[in-house]
Amino acid sequence: MAEYRNPTPTVDLVVLLPGDRVVLVERKGEPRGWALPGGFVDEGESLEAAAVREAREEIGLEVTLEEQFHAYSDPRRDPRRHTVTTVFIGRAEGEPVGGDDAAQARPFPWTALPSPLCFDHAEILGDVRRYLLTGQRRRL
Amino acid sequence: MAEYRNPTPTVDLVVLLPGDRVVLVERKGEPRGWALPGGFVDEGESLEAAAVREAREEIGLEVTLEEQFHAYSDPRRDPRRHTVTTVFIGRAEGEPVGGDDAAQARPFPWTALPSPLCFDHAEILGDVRRYLLTGQRRRL
Repeated sequence: MAEYRNPTPTVDLVVLLPGDRVVLVERKGEPRGWALPGGFVDEGESLEAAAVREAREEIGLEVTLEEQFHAYSDPRRDPRRHTVTTVFIGRAEGEPVGGDDAAQARPFPWTALPSPLCFDHAEILGDVRRYLLTGQRRRL
Repeated sequence: MAEYRNPTPTVDLVVLLPGDRVVLVERKGEPRGWALPGGFVDEGESLEAAAVREAREEIGLEVTLEEQFHAYSDPRRDPRRHTVTTVFIGRAEGEPVGGDDAAQARPFPWTALPSPLCFDHAEILGDVRRYLLTGQRRRL
């Protein structure tokens, strides 16, 4: 049988904290900079389980997932390899603590997000913000 | 570096035809039976491009994608390997013709879908039908 190559599934999380804030992580590895918490999905793990696990590992918070938002799959979205990320919206309480691949984790007010962000995460946050404010989902 | 194993990304399509009908395919391979058209996403290909390609190959129709609906990732959803499928809703005109992995392709009225369906496709169709009728998306 021919061997096919497929993109790799990941999850990313928009974690909402009280006070209209969202949690970002400063990445330890390349590309450096601020990004959404997230990571690879393991074989045998659902997207939802991966999202909860990544939040625990990278920002030290127990997240309650509220929604599967959208999957982003542009082959150029990550310079290292082709990933397909499913983005979740969740809520948590408490203060985030960076761990695993995150040098630090910090809540930002929506009105003062750092720029630029890694990958397509500025686009994702723009889409989520619009959705939270208007109920309008990202179009294809 | 340790080697990690990840699930494989796929797409499945709910293709709506005029007359409140949806297109299903009869699978050539195991597991046999009726299912949604769909298949593996290639490296370098977006989910949306994969969905349009699979519709062309399996049911011979040019589909206009309307929505990314939901991603289903239960590790038990496919007995052969762990797949994460992103489901699209699209529209097409004309009559489907089975090709590639499909022995045949046929439109069914929503009120007379075959049963059982392969994989979790009955659940997916139930979720999509509810969404089309009520605007209510699948909850986590």
